[in-house]
Amino acid sequence: MPTFKLTVAYDGTDFVGWQRQAAGASIQGLLEEALFPLEERAVTVIGAGRTDAGVHALGQVAACSLERPINPSTLMRALNARLPPAVRVIDAVEAAATFHPRFDAVAKTYRYCICTAAVVSPFEHRYVWHLPGALDVGAMEAAARVLVGEHDFACFRTVGAEVESSVRVLYESTVTRETNATLLPGAMSFVCPGSEYVAYTAIGTGFLRHMVRAVVGSLVEIGKGRRPVEWMRDVVEGRDRANAGPTAPPQGLCLMRVSYVA
Amino acid sequence: MPTFKLTVAYDGTDFVGWQRQAAGASIQGLLEEALFPLEERAVTVIGAGRTDAGVHALGQVAACSLERPINPSTLMRALNARLPPAVRVIDAVEAAATFHPRFDAVAKTYRYCICTAAVVSPFEHRYVWHLPGALDVGAMEAAARVLVGEHDFACFRTVGAEVESSVRVLYESTVTRETNATLLPGAMSFVCPGSEYVAYTAIGTGFLRHMVRAVVGSLVEIGKGRRPVEWMRDVVEGRDRANAGPTAPPQGLCLMRVSYVA
Repeated sequence: MPTFKLTVAYDGTDFVGWQRQAAGASIQGLLEEALFPLEERAVTVIGAGRTDAGVHALGQVAACSLERPINPSTLMRALNARLPPAVRVIDAVEAAATFHPRFDAVAKTYRYCICTAAVVSPFEHRYVWHLPGALDVGAMEAAARVLVGEHDFACFRTVGAEVESSVRVLYESTVTRETNATLLPGAMSFVCPGSEYVAYTAIGTGFLRHMVRAVVGSLVEIGKGRRPVEWMRDVVEGRDRANAGPTAPPQGLCLMRVSYVA
Repeated sequence: MPTFKLTVAYDGTDFVGWQRQAAGASIQGLLEEALFPLEERAVTVIGAGRTDAGVHALGQVAACSLERPINPSTLMRALNARLPPAVRVIDAVEAAATFHPRFDAVAKTYRYCICTAAVVSPFEHRYVWHLPGALDVGAMEAAARVLVGEHDFACFRTVGAEVESSVRVLYESTVTRETNATLLPGAMSFVCPGSEYVAYTAIGTGFLRHMVRAVVGSLVEIGKGRRPVEWMRDVVEGRDRANAGPTAPPQGLCLMRVSYVA
């Protein structure tokens, strides 16, 4: 009964999120439906991270165990033939029978993109938070650095959510200004005058639900000058979600990569 | 009665094309509807080129004449507030009363993008023709160069279409291999292994209906080795649409720019 490690990219716009729900199309559900005719039985697909509705992925990792022998590249082709074009299996390899995408992951990389231009490209509006006007990127970057290391991130935890520990380790937490607004294959630069992006990148052992979006919402408070850089440390130390900024909208977020010990 | 020159970008996926139709949303129709409340009367919007259903634009140019005085940047904001996010006015300037987007245009730039990878990115499938497998880009480029200059392009004219002259001048007709598969703002490279694109760029005085797509369909015949490079000259000289290749699908095509004498 071989186990497969699948790398999955998706445009999350039209889905209820990674996880199977009572109503609506989920990425997990679509993968399980695509596997059904191959195995002629229900197959469970386990993901590394539960991305929310509207959140995208370039490198989500999922696993499934199949009874019938199949070549990984044949499996990938068969799945892509049944999945909608907004969901693509971009890699498939056979993994150890004990492989678990979430428990075995050593790090996840998330990226959040804000478009600060007056007009957002029609090709990009699904992938950015449109927040016209200047952002103090230096102040945001200084505040983002405060989050590097091991912290109790209760301040960024959805109220009433998990009961388990909210301690997590961030290896990287950076804010960068991006001017490359290529949106179509072949690096055709968008002509929209003054297009400019601010990206937040976080690499960590794991993330609480809505954590990256709450961090971004808080960084924007600082970037807009409504709070000083030092406020970020107070927010973390206060361990109270009510002190942090609002949750940024989902469409700017992308699960870029899930890392494993090679 | 000031005349405005609008530069318009759109993701053509969900529209019937530029031109107003009996049924379905058109870019022209959406712009005219967005102008109606500003003028409280029907306003006609004229475009530089009639892009077909599913064809995109980064730099379509349109014109309208308004009775009420309005600042161009206010007009741009008012239109964008009423248009869906897939259609954006990215520039607005006041133009001469005699300005006509089509008759005054000296050149148009179209670009067509083919993705030759086994798997096409979920973020790009709306903007490329997915044609997995190798293409002989050198042969395609040699054949594309044959089209530069003044020619009767009847061979690329939709059967039963226009009765006017099919003579056009192409200033540029090139095929390039593209490896930059950035798809999200901030130049996040897509992780799909072996992603590769082939782009056809055409700059000319004007284009017949479906002409660029018929050229691309013919170039692909050569790129796949089904026809030799020399076949392109025979196709042009034969002036018969039946000799050329099939019409490439619309979603790979983008109207990049309309040029005017400064």
